[in-house]
Amino acid sequence: MTRSPLAPPHFPPMPDIPGVRLAVARAGYKAWERADLTLAELAPGTTVAGLTTRSRCPSPEVELCRAHLPQGHARALVINAGNSNAFTGARGAEATRLVTATTAAALDCPETQIFVASTGVIGVPLPQEKAKAGLEAAFAKLRVGSTASWEHAATAIGTTDTFPKGASATCEIDGHPVHIAGIAKGSGMIAPDMATMLAFVFTDAAIAPPALQSMLHQAANHSFHRITVDGDTSTSDTLLAFATARAGNAPITAPHPAFQHALTQVCADLARQIVRDGEGAQKFITIHVTGAQSDHAAHRIALSIANSPLVKTAIAGGDANWGRVVMAVGKAGEAADRDRLAIRFGASVVAEHGAVVPGYDEAPVATHLAGTQIEIGVDLGLGTGSAEVWTCDLTHGYIAINADYRS
Amino acid sequence: MTRSPLAPPHFPPMPDIPGVRLAVARAGYKAWERADLTLAELAPGTTVAGLTTRSRCPSPEVELCRAHLPQGHARALVINAGNSNAFTGARGAEATRLVTATTAAALDCPETQIFVASTGVIGVPLPQEKAKAGLEAAFAKLRVGSTASWEHAATAIGTTDTFPKGASATCEIDGHPVHIAGIAKGSGMIAPDMATMLAFVFTDAAIAPPALQSMLHQAANHSFHRITVDGDTSTSDTLLAFATARAGNAPITAPHPAFQHALTQVCADLARQIVRDGEGAQKFITIHVTGAQSDHAAHRIALSIANSPLVKTAIAGGDANWGRVVMAVGKAGEAADRDRLAIRFGASVVAEHGAVVPGYDEAPVATHLAGTQIEIGVDLGLGTGSAEVWTCDLTHGYIAINADYRS
Repeated sequence: MTRSPLAPPHFPPMPDIPGVRLAVARAGYKAWERADLTLAELAPGTTVAGLTTRSRCPSPEVELCRAHLPQGHARALVINAGNSNAFTGARGAEATRLVTATTAAALDCPETQIFVASTGVIGVPLPQEKAKAGLEAAFAKLRVGSTASWEHAATAIGTTDTFPKGASATCEIDGHPVHIAGIAKGSGMIAPDMATMLAFVFTDAAIAPPALQSMLHQAANHSFHRITVDGDTSTSDTLLAFATARAGNAPITAPHPAFQHALTQVCADLARQIVRDGEGAQKFITIHVTGAQSDHAAHRIALSIANSPLVKTAIAGGDANWGRVVMAVGKAGEAADRDRLAIRFGASVVAEHGAVVPGYDEAPVATHLAGTQIEIGVDLGLGTGSAEVWTCDLTHGYIAINADYRS
Repeated sequence: MTRSPLAPPHFPPMPDIPGVRLAVARAGYKAWERADLTLAELAPGTTVAGLTTRSRCPSPEVELCRAHLPQGHARALVINAGNSNAFTGARGAEATRLVTATTAAALDCPETQIFVASTGVIGVPLPQEKAKAGLEAAFAKLRVGSTASWEHAATAIGTTDTFPKGASATCEIDGHPVHIAGIAKGSGMIAPDMATMLAFVFTDAAIAPPALQSMLHQAANHSFHRITVDGDTSTSDTLLAFATARAGNAPITAPHPAFQHALTQVCADLARQIVRDGEGAQKFITIHVTGAQSDHAAHRIALSIANSPLVKTAIAGGDANWGRVVMAVGKAGEAADRDRLAIRFGASVVAEHGAVVPGYDEAPVATHLAGTQIEIGVDLGLGTGSAEVWTCDLTHGYIAINADYRS
């Protein structure tokens, strides 16, 4: 797979998180020569928070995370790549239980402290023998201190991803420096085969589970909930945050502004990297909606634009087709007044008061659209609601990847 | 534009509708050598019903139709192709008023009995001089009896359409044979540039406006509301039905089963032709959902499948990727139970009880998917709700048409 033209130049430097030990192993879920099982061992006392897919047909891994999250503590995270184990009936659930039981036995902890995520092809039960052998190999590496780097782990959880995705931040809590490190995979935000979105964030801060959950939810609202590649929602999307309580701060029991800011920053960075690896993406598109009746309305209008195949193909073609933006605003189902609508591409206002601007000059717009960082601004002129959404263009590459993928 | 591989072999034979006289003229809205203005003169006493786009940013033509529909009578329909006149501010509305006034003066009737629809590029005001000259040419033809055929009219209202679309039916009302003839345009159900959906149905039956509106609504629910190409909603979508009262039947004042059946048949035929002309379409896909909690839920699930880029690209690639169908069911937001879900392609059940069928044989499925008429069946196992939706695959042709269209 060719590296996305929107990929960052290299994997970022990322801090170790005390209380987190990583190992990767080759379970062999697919016929590939690479690690595809990732184990994160978490120190006793680690708290956890998480969000999972809104799909009504979730994978057994998602059901397991949902069942284990309420007790709030974690000792390990296991990630399988190459097989999502989704829609596999009783045999899939059995495989998930085996992974959980094996990991809990190795760590001598309750099964409810084990979290599992799998990504890859739908409909094939996770092979139990391969999972077990892979897990044992990962634990063997930890026993001899052969841990993996963030880049190793970010690579091992990938599937159709063309580059590993990582981000980090630091902040202070009560004078104690704390660190946040996150990894993610996804290519096509959300695709059920090999492009399911998974993201995992680790911090050494001490944070009570309800506060962590609240801050993670807020961070997701400003990151993973703002991206779309094709509008399709996976059966396996999972975002988990783990706090190992090794930084020395007094445990946070309510949202903490500095930590919230740093956490949101890490999540937004990872979310943007997923869009940069969108299937077939050639251009990164930021959609900024202002003047809506509410932030919620602005978000829905921004997503309507971001998910419109006609807008996405126009951007792919470098075409300043603002009529398609009008169309997408009109279909969003939120209040809009054609005669107050203003639209811009980059810094150029192309339409306002319900019509093209007088003396419209397409040249600067064409120049903006010829680049790889596209900005579409829409002002509804109705209120103060605003939202920003990130997406990519829809290209021949998307068709080639998805029409030919499984065959 | 190459004729769609899914096009019917020829334009169907269609009956004259007494009380309807057609003329086409060259207004020259674009630099093309073809008629692009269509006039349908309707006999005094003609009743009218209609449905328009749900877009919050409709064209002035749509606003005009909405304003004129309540009085229930029509003397003329004017259709402009090549310019949608949408999002053109006060100048666009002025052009629509000019067309209305010119037509009403020529027929010596109230302006509220004139209906106008325009389709084509967004954001350029309809040129008033061209519209006026085209209208006068059309009226001149009618004066000398040089009327146009249904095929002429169906061709003149097209834009990116690759074939003209017509359908007809007959039925009896109180022993009087009545005829229905309809034409439509659209390529990409719904696209704001050149592929807006317009459909017009004419009958010689005598039908009171409320009964015609009720039956048209019901017909649309089983035809135009069941198709999608790309999920994008135009600023100009318009469906109008005209009844000239020349068949001799006593006026219908309540829904009439035989007429309803014939009207639905004509609308469904036109709707399927629009999908067959979907931008880049290589395969016609019927999605049949059963066992849902309600018909409404079934319809939403069917549309979620039909609008999923991942399902549509899989079909384009002839890939029996039922995992993507599971994904689309899961994201629809309606009740679904993974472990009761059954999925079939053509006659082959591929998954049931939440997993692939034992001994699944992909060969007959691959054969079905290699054809051009694809059927996807989903049974939810929850209730008795059902729905059928028609769509097409998503191909390189769609990208080529829409990434390069305006440039």
